[in-house]
Order: sequence, then structure tokens, then C-alpha cells
Amino acid sequence: MTPNNGGDAWLRTWVGGATPDSITVGGLDLPSEVMGRLSLSELAYLLVTRRSPTEAQARVLDAVLVSLADHGLTPSALATRLTYTGAPEALQGAVAAGLLGAGSVFLGPAGDTALFLADALDRFGAGAGTDGTDGEADGGDVSGDLRAVAEAAVAERLEASARVPGLGHPVHRGGDPRVPRLYEIADAEGLLGPHLRLLEEVAKVHAERSGKDLPINGAGAGGAALVDAGVPAAMVRGVVLIARTVGLVGHLAEELASPLGMPLWRDIEERARADE
Amino acid sequence: MTPNNGGDAWLRTWVGGATPDSITVGGLDLPSEVMGRLSLSELAYLLVTRRSPTEAQARVLDAVLVSLADHGLTPSALATRLTYTGAPEALQGAVAAGLLGAGSVFLGPAGDTALFLADALDRFGAGAGTDGTDGEADGGDVSGDLRAVAEAAVAERLEASARVPGLGHPVHRGGDPRVPRLYEIADAEGLLGPHLRLLEEVAKVHAERSGKDLPINGAGAGGAALVDAGVPAAMVRGVVLIARTVGLVGHLAEELASPLGMPLWRDIEERARADE
Amino acid sequence: MTPNNGGDAWLRTWVGGATPDSITVGGLDLPSEVMGRLSLSELAYLLVTRRSPTEAQARVLDAVLVSLADHGLTPSALATRLTYTGAPEALQGAVAAGLLGAGSVFLGPAGDTALFLADALDRFGAGAGTDGTDGEADGGDVSGDLRAVAEAAVAERLEASARVPGLGHPVHRGGDPRVPRLYEIADAEGLLGPHLRLLEEVAKVHAERSGKDLPINGAGAGGAALVDAGVPAAMVRGVVLIARTVGLVGHLAEELASPLGMPLWRDIEERARADE
Amino acid sequence: MTPNNGGDAWLRTWVGGATPDSITVGGLDLPSEVMGRLSLSELAYLLVTRRSPTEAQARVLDAVLVSLADHGLTPSALATRLTYTGAPEALQGAVAAGLLGAGSVFLGPAGDTALFLADALDRFGAGAGTDGTDGEADGGDVSGDLRAVAEAAVAERLEASARVPGLGHPVHRGGDPRVPRLYEIADAEGLLGPHLRLLEEVAKVHAERSGKDLPINGAGAGGAALVDAGVPAAMVRGVVLIARTVGLVGHLAEELASPLGMPLWRDIEERARADE
Repeated sequence: MTPNNGGDAWLRTWVGGATPDSITVGGLDLPSEVMGRLSLSELAYLLVTRRSPTEAQARVLDAVLVSLADHGLTPSALATRLTYTGAPEALQGAVAAGLLGAGSVFLGPAGDTALFLADALDRFGAGAGTDGTDGEADGGDVSGDLRAVAEAAVAERLEASARVPGLGHPVHRGGDPRVPRLYEIADAEGLLGPHLRLLEEVAKVHAERSGKDLPINGAGAGGAALVDAGVPAAMVRGVVLIARTVGLVGHLAEELASPLGMPLWRDIEERARADE
Repeated sequence: MTPNNGGDAWLRTWVGGATPDSITVGGLDLPSEVMGRLSLSELAYLLVTRRSPTEAQARVLDAVLVSLADHGLTPSALATRLTYTGAPEALQGAVAAGLLGAGSVFLGPAGDTALFLADALDRFGAGAGTDGTDGEADGGDVSGDLRAVAEAAVAERLEASARVPGLGHPVHRGGDPRVPRLYEIADAEGLLGPHLRLLEEVAKVHAERSGKDLPINGAGAGGAALVDAGVPAAMVRGVVLIARTVGLVGHLAEELASPLGMPLWRDIEERARADE
Repeated sequence: MTPNNGGDAWLRTWVGGATPDSITVGGLDLPSEVMGRLSLSELAYLLVTRRSPTEAQARVLDAVLVSLADHGLTPSALATRLTYTGAPEALQGAVAAGLLGAGSVFLGPAGDTALFLADALDRFGAGAGTDGTDGEADGGDVSGDLRAVAEAAVAERLEASARVPGLGHPVHRGGDPRVPRLYEIADAEGLLGPHLRLLEEVAKVHAERSGKDLPINGAGAGGAALVDAGVPAAMVRGVVLIARTVGLVGHLAEELASPLGMPLWRDIEERARADE
Repeated sequence: MTPNNGGDAWLRTWVGGATPDSITVGGLDLPSEVMGRLSLSELAYLLVTRRSPTEAQARVLDAVLVSLADHGLTPSALATRLTYTGAPEALQGAVAAGLLGAGSVFLGPAGDTALFLADALDRFGAGAGTDGTDGEADGGDVSGDLRAVAEAAVAERLEASARVPGLGHPVHRGGDPRVPRLYEIADAEGLLGPHLRLLEEVAKVHAERSGKDLPINGAGAGGAALVDAGVPAAMVRGVVLIARTVGLVGHLAEELASPLGMPLWRDIEERARADE
């Protein structure tokens, strides 16, 4: 029951491969076509989209990734540092532990927003029902279209008592400082596309309909920007993990120099006991 | 017993932080000083070393990271794809599972080589016992020095029947194609430093002493290059995890499009049964 | 903004604790009240439910846990073994990697079934809307009630084109051999409660309504049995991870003695190449 | 290059397997020979040792496992709870994150002690150099033998400035309350074997030689007891992960009811800021 009776082609991967004297990554010869030519972000783009990024796409991708790399001593960063305390010989375990907290509450909203926007454009957009693309309108009254798409998508969520992803932040209540900068960069690069613009409409419609003014958050804007830059919406949640890995490795470097895990444990135990 | 009686300064992190209207990463204002200005690799360098990389350091860092991102359907990539099969709703778990295989056998040798070389220069180098630096010789007969350092370090390992890290590769027996290219890039950037050069001497001495010609491998060269580019040897093992995350996310993208996990499971079960 | 202005009581845990000369677990003195008195399964029950299990509850718990411990070279077991290949020094990473595949596809259905049944009894059961309990009927025409509950719950799922959890198995198409045995044990222990019985009705109703005869699977029966034995439905997904850990540790023991990870990698690489 | 040219027997596992109408685990028929007959601990013993445990072995195994299940809000438990905060939809990730901290510092010492003792008996014991067994003396002046073994093993460690595993505890400085109870249980079950007894000698010799009185800790005694109960020393580090999983699932149950992760994060952020 091999999936392919004619051979084992199903066991091949395009991502990377090696023979005794060559290594390829993403269809390119690693030494001559990747090393010294592509940045790590550009390689990530290639592996995820199967296309080399334009300069504009690479700049937006880097802007999103650095914007999501770290947010201080979050539960995720604490998990990495506390895991290092118990298993300092296995740095990979400490980074993995931190990544495991990048779920529906933290970082996951980037991917949720990407999927929400792509789905809304697909189902309610100008091109909906016609060609199966993302519903990107190729002219005409695009902003009017996006307003209508936003209205349909937000209404559906509110009726289902479901949250609209990409809006609101527990700390940055008055507005997330990453958001205007990201829109600025995307605009400068000619990549202020339908997902980023729809997200603006969604925020406006949501405020009108719900009466709660929840500004766009950094994860949501990042997710929208990645899709406008060519990343498939279903892979946004994966791509942002690359950003978080960088932040977690930064926390590890700090933990090696100034350990926080052990004193935090002792502090918690002491406070819990002092209260008895 | 808080570590610092005067307050809770020990709970602060330099890596990242947020107030309601600002976010800093690595001591920089995220929107104005990082987004649109630093690539993800440059931010990683900043977070790990607390210095902004020079252009040369950034180029070497990217060259090393792309060289270690992927090597095909390795056990690590398979773990990511098989984990996705069971928990497609948690991409972070699939990436974490793949990272957990980046231990002493795979990828870990980059960090082992970095520590081995830094320790050898520290203990046997020209500056050994004088100033506590990495033993980097500031002139004089450097290559003679490095030969002596290599002889002492290799002898110590062989006497202890221990492997010399950074040499040999199960697939690339005649030479790892990443290695000459990495030396070329480091040289072009003026970063062919004592660790990369010591590794060359180590390979020569090892071949003479052991009679086995084990060429430098990509992980070893990468580890040496990172230290020459300013990454602390103890953090090399952490930094290379960033590279591997990119490869694993690439495998996830492929797994979403052409699933391998489920057919691989069925194939294994069928072959095992057919043999009974 | 500590959650409790009066002190740090929020930092205390009931699960376990230690002073210099005592250790407590689940409110009991570990040396005198737990060691030599409770099995590991009984301790798990205590920690999850905050009650000591009756003998009957402990027997059903063990029966469920052993029934879900292992199912051969599943993707989860393969992830553990392949992770050990790359990081043999960190057994905790290999076990963690295997657990990460216990998501919505594998093992997760036990928890999904538990939640589905508890929710159905809560919303459609005899006690629905009255007292907030699980809807367990205390007499009267219970089996008639359960038939009605099953009809409402299955109809809701089918209308939403959603799967009914707990039914069907890709291998055990004609019936999962764990299921009748689990019902037998629960019955013998007087714990054939509303969740297990509702699941039987659900399977019947589903076959009638959908025309597809999907027998109850082991994960579903296990989830139902755990709730009937007193485990909160929301914790079933956590409890079954204990069972899977045992299977994964078994695979590790076998991997140490007869490594599969490295040959599997080589085999895959060779087959992929042979096909080119 | 399949390991076995004659077929795919290398792809078979003894741990578990399934056909459409049967499931086996550890060579036994799961429904009829395991469910209702073996506890989860007994199944773990079977899978790891390939032998069914005697009643005595099962009792010692359970005593060790419950003794290592939890120790309060350790870094490992905190990692589980903080990971749940970020990814409440993936309980498997929260448990995995906690397990990743069970490394060289926490829990790992159980396995380190087991390996240290088994190696000492092997190299310095009465049977050393004769039959390759664990050096278990079959009569004669056993306690004299063990004293000599302990002296040789401790001397070797102290000369290498290495720690002797199994001794000392940061909290239980005057003696770990688990230890006398575990010796009592092992004695009552007739399983006070060479590893547990050697550990007593090791503690005495270490105190004499080093001048530091470090009592036996619970992890060390647990590791020794597992080997005396028949668990291979190399698998002790794996087996104790089963115990820790139970404690972590207990913390998850508490976290669902009384969340600690989010308030802890806020508390840390607030304290760090208040100090600026």
C-alpha cells in the first residue's frame, strides 16, 4: 500500500537533500547558490513558498519576524529559562519548551488572523465564487469591496459569539506600536495588499458593531503582512515560530550569563511558604 | 531570599520588554530601530552577543545558518512530519519535536566543535595563562602556534579514546561541500579567524596521528565560523537551532501539501507484517 | 496586581510540596501515606480528582491506561525513536517528542469523546437545565433517556458536517478488541455509567442516521470510562498522556537494545534515491 | 542497505502491535492478558524489562514512582503550567514542556546514580572481570566487598573532582524523608539488593573522605531501588519520566481549576517594572 506503486518517489523531499558530494536546499545547490547569497529569512521564504522572495517581500518578512521575536519574560520565555535550569545539557529542549507555549493564546493569533482574512476574502470578496484565488480584486472599488467583506466577516463572528482575531492586546490597549510601523514598511515596499487593508476595515467595523475599540495587534498585522508578502495563510503559524526561536535563544544566552530560573523557583517557594 | 535584597532587578530582562506604548528588543526601540532595519539573523546576533553585527559578521552568520538549515529527511525532519500527522492543530509541537533531535549526534557537533576549539586555544594557545582571552595570537608565527595547539588538543583526545569533534561525516566521506565555501566566505569577509584556522590544523594533525583521513564537516566548520564571527562558544549550540527551525518549518510546509507521515506509518506497518 | 492582595497564597500548590524534613503529595505525607500504599495510577487519580479512588475506580483507570499505552510503531513511537537517534543523551526529549504527536488525531479522541458525551448529557440529559450536574439520571427510564440524548447529540453533529468522536478506527474496522473488554470490566466493577452507556447509544444512532457502521473505538470507550470512573472530562486528554508515556518508554528501551532510528533514516534515503 | 537483507524484520516491534481484530502489548494479548490484569506500573515494568514483575518488584516500582512524581512548583511544573497558559488547546505540549526540564539537574540524578552504582559493581565488585554480571556477590563477605567497591568508586570521583551522584539535596539537607521509607519497603519485599546497599556505603565513604556529610537523596535511592528491582540501569532515566508525567498532569488539573501561569507572568512583569 505504498502511495505510489511505481516506486518510492513519495519518500523524496524537495526541502533538502544530499549526495556524497553535493547538498541541495529548496532546489538550489547549497554551497554555490545559497551560502553567501541568501539570508536565513530568504531561505525560509523559499522553503515555505517555493519561490525566491523579491527584495520587497524579504524586507516585509524580516520586519514581521523581528517584530514577533520577543516580548520580554512571557510565559514562553520563562518556560525556556526554567527548562534550562533542569536540563542545561540539552539546549534544544529549552528552546522546544518555549516554542510549545506559542499556541492559541500567544503568537498563534498571527496565524489565526491570516486564516480569517484569507477565508473572508475567499468567501465574501469580489472574486468570491469565480476563480478560487484569494479574492484579490484587480481594480474597481477595492476599498468599498473590503468594507463589505469586513462587514460580512465580522458579523459572522459576532453572531457566533466568537472573537475576531488580530484585534486587542492586554498590554498595548491604546494601540500596538508595531502596527503603524509595519503598515508603513509594507506600504513603502508596495506590499500593502488586500489582507493588511482588510484588517484595517475589520478593526473599524468591529469597533462600530461591538462598541469596543480594539486596535489591531502586532500578531494580527504580522499575519496579514505575511500573507500579502506571499506566505500561504496556513503556514503563517509555522513561519512565526522562526521568529520566536530567535527570542528564545536570546533568553538562553541571558540565562547562561545571569540565571533567573533557580532564583525564581526559590522565590516562589519562599513566598508561598511565608504566607502559610 | 530574593537574590537581590534591594529590589526585583533580577526579574528584569534585557532581551525584550514592553510598556503600554513601547516595545524594546535588545535595548533598541522595536518599531523605529529594529523593524525595517535589522534582518532576523542580525537581531539574533544582537540578542546573543549584545552587540550589533558588522556587515561581515552578519554575512558569515547567514552563511552558517543557511548551511545548517536542512539535510533532507533526517530523523529530525521525520519527527516533525510524524508529529504533525498526530497533532496537525499544533504546529508548534511538530517543530519542537524536530528540534529535540538536534542533540549530540545531529547539529550538536557544531557547538561541541566550538567549545573544543575555544578551549584548546584557551589552554594551549599563545596567550594561554596570560590574559584570559581566547588565546588569539596578535601577530608572530600564528600558524606555527596553531599547529602546536592542534597537536596538544588532538593528542589529549586520542589518549582519552575520545572523538575529535568537527571531523568526518557519514554521507560526505570525501569532503563536505559546505566547508570550502564557508572558508571562502569567511576569508572574503576578513573573518578567517583562529577557530577556523585551528580546525584546519586539527584535521591535518588528526589524519597524521590516527591514520584516518576525516575531513572537516559542515557542522564543525559552522561552529568554528560562528565563534570567529563573535558568537560565544557556549551559545553556538543554541544559535544553530535557529537554522534548524527554518528547515523544519520548510518540512511542515511540504507536509501540509504532500503528507508523508501517514503513508510512512502504513508502509512500515505493512512491511513489518509482510515479513512475518 | 497580585491576584490576592492579602498575600501570596496564589503561589501555593496542592499537588506537592516540601519542607526540609517532609514531603507531601496530594495532601498526603509522601513517605507514610503514599509510598507503599498507593500505586502510581492511584496517585494520578488522586492528583487529578482530589479524591482517593475506590478499588473499582482504580481498576477501571488501570484498564483504560494499559489499553491506551501503545499501538505499535505509530507516528508517535517513531518520533520518540528518531529523536533518540539524534539526542541519545536526553531521554526526556525523546519521550517529549513522542507525546507531542498525541494530538487531535491520535489519543486526543479519548478526550474529545469524554467532552462530547459530558456535554451531551449536560445539555440534552434528564437533568439538563435543572441542577448543573452531568445530567446523570437517578432512576426512571434511563436507557430511553440516553437514546434521546444520543439522537440530539448525533443530529447536531451530522447537521454541522462534524465527526462524531469515539467511533471508527482505521485498523480495527470490524470492531476494536479493547472495547468489549473495557465494558466488561466497567460492568464488573459497577462503573458502567452514563457516559459509557451513552456512547453505545451514540454508535447505534450514528449507524442508523449516517448509514455508516462505525464501531466504538478504544480511545472513545477509554475516555467514556474515565469520566464514569470520576475523571473530569476536561482532564481526560491529560490523563491518557500518562498511558502513552509508558508505551514510549517501552519503545525507548527497545531502541537502546535494537536501534531502528538510524537504519530507518538510511532506508528512506536509499529508497528515495533509488527511484530517481 | 536495509539492516536485514532477508526481509523487513528490523521494522517489527515487540512493544505493541495490531491486526484488524487483535492488539498485543509486550507479547501479551491486550484485552485478555493485560486489561484488568496488569496495572500501568506493571505494564511499564514488562515493556522495559521484557519480564512480568513479581509482586515484590511491582511494589518497589510503585514506591519509587510515587516518590518521584512531584516536588511542588519546581521549574519543571512551572514550565508545564506556563506552557498551558499559551497553548491551552494542546495539553500534550504542556506535559512535554515539563518533561524537558527532567534533565541532569532534576530527576536525571536517579539515572546517573543507577549507572554509577552498576558500573562500580561491574568494575570493582567481587565478580568483576569474571562473568560480566552486575558483580553481585553470591555469598561471602558481601558488606566488606561493598565497602571496598564504594571506596574505589568514590576515590575515582573525588580524584576527578566529579560529584558523586545520589547524595545531597538542596532542600532536604538533614536527610531526605523518602530514603528511609524506600529502604524499608525494599527490605520488606526482599529487594534490598547490592545497588541500594552499595549506595549506603558510598554515602559513608563519601562523608569520611570529603568531610562533607551529604545524605542519600530520594532520586539516588530511587535509581538504586529500580536496578535492584530489575530495571536496567540505562533505562532508569526513562522510567522515572513516567512518574514525573503523573505529577505534571496533576499540575495541569490544578492549572485548569486555578490558573497560576497568567498571574505569575503579570506579577513578574510588575515587580520588574516597579524596580526601575
